[in-house]
Amino acid sequence: VTYCLAMRLDAGLIFLSDTRTNAGVDNVGTYRKLHVLHAGDDRTFVLQSAGSLATTHEVLSRIDRDLTDPGARQSLATVQHLFEAALYLGRLNKEVYAEHAPTVGLGAAATFILGGQIRHERPNILLVYPEGNYIRVSDTVPFLQIGETKYGKFLLELAVRAHVDLETAAKIALGSMLSTAHANLAVGPPYDAGLYRNGTFEVRELRIEEDNAYLRQLNEVWIDQLLDSISHLPPIPADLVEEFS
Amino acid sequence: VTYCLAMRLDAGLIFLSDTRTNAGVDNVGTYRKLHVLHAGDDRTFVLQSAGSLATTHEVLSRIDRDLTDPGARQSLATVQHLFEAALYLGRLNKEVYAEHAPTVGLGAAATFILGGQIRHERPNILLVYPEGNYIRVSDTVPFLQIGETKYGKFLLELAVRAHVDLETAAKIALGSMLSTAHANLAVGPPYDAGLYRNGTFEVRELRIEEDNAYLRQLNEVWIDQLLDSISHLPPIPADLVEEFS
Repeated sequence: VTYCLAMRLDAGLIFLSDTRTNAGVDNVGTYRKLHVLHAGDDRTFVLQSAGSLATTHEVLSRIDRDLTDPGARQSLATVQHLFEAALYLGRLNKEVYAEHAPTVGLGAAATFILGGQIRHERPNILLVYPEGNYIRVSDTVPFLQIGETKYGKFLLELAVRAHVDLETAAKIALGSMLSTAHANLAVGPPYDAGLYRNGTFEVRELRIEEDNAYLRQLNEVWIDQLLDSISHLPPIPADLVEEFS
Repeated sequence: VTYCLAMRLDAGLIFLSDTRTNAGVDNVGTYRKLHVLHAGDDRTFVLQSAGSLATTHEVLSRIDRDLTDPGARQSLATVQHLFEAALYLGRLNKEVYAEHAPTVGLGAAATFILGGQIRHERPNILLVYPEGNYIRVSDTVPFLQIGETKYGKFLLELAVRAHVDLETAAKIALGSMLSTAHANLAVGPPYDAGLYRNGTFEVRELRIEEDNAYLRQLNEVWIDQLLDSISHLPPIPADLVEEFS
């Protein structure tokens, strides 16, 4: 499995991916699932992937080839809008899937999150399906997830509700990742984060290892806070159930 | 979908089920998924179901028939241990599935949680698979879930970590249900709860409607507590990422 999430805040974008891959529990590996793509000074792209690792790698190879091939009819350097980048990515994804699906089947499918900024356009985040189409974040739902999305979703919704800033969103993203990794062994460290401030056209990348002291501290404080929350829940009223009040 | 959960505490058992059924979003209904089964003064059973409603209903009919048929080779009144009740239930489940699978296919499968107490045996909770076998709770994992289990699991794990009492566990069970219903529209109120104190052989049943004042209050306090928790998370250290500290 995989867990990747991306959030759009007023000041920028946050991306977080795990690195665990598995082809059965006796074949667990570590592969990067967050990629910063360089395609010019007026644009920046972050790509996150879930699903077939083989399809992901071939899509990445094709993106690179199109960027260096002067005869390419389209590339991340030529698209004018982020949604065109998503459709371009979707086309590559469909082509690679079509190439391998006859032998691999549905297991050849990959899903991507593509985020970034082109020129003065508002930074955005889009989810590209194996079928080649996409959805994007909105002001009411400013995050996207791929892979094992259910365990960590409540924290992202909480961040939306709290209108958090970029730094707090980063903490919450890590909390969402830790919740997911705790629940599903097929999601695990190290974690790759990408942090983008609007208009900078530069993504700050960092890899957070399992033994990172801050990650441990964050986890402990979060658990303590949750346990504390339990003690503040209101008592069940007598009329709801006599013997439990 | 469905969400049912059951927890074993030192003092007793807690069961909570939603009631929503759907055969497509334009065909949503309300059906009881929590059943207290009466089979004698020295035993008490609570049954929760997920999956095929038709299979569930036929299993319930067969349980009732066996209880009233003097010629039945086995019933919930004759079993000597809770695990035998689980195997009996598993046999009925397999039989009903086998009867309808040729026409219905995998959609005929149902999964059950069976909890309760027989005589002086320690109260227990078991999960009965469509294949007829079972697993049971343990002291380290004292809860079971069926249906849409992922969204609400973190709260149950928190309750385990906090070694909560029966009343607090009931609040946490409701919190787990509310989290799940919030995330998945196919899980919804009213909710049926069953509360059992060890040795009483009597299950206190209650139905909690959507507009219940306590449910709303619990939800609000819980959200407030979580939002408050966010403000207590430790700052991201400068060495982890300079520009975000």
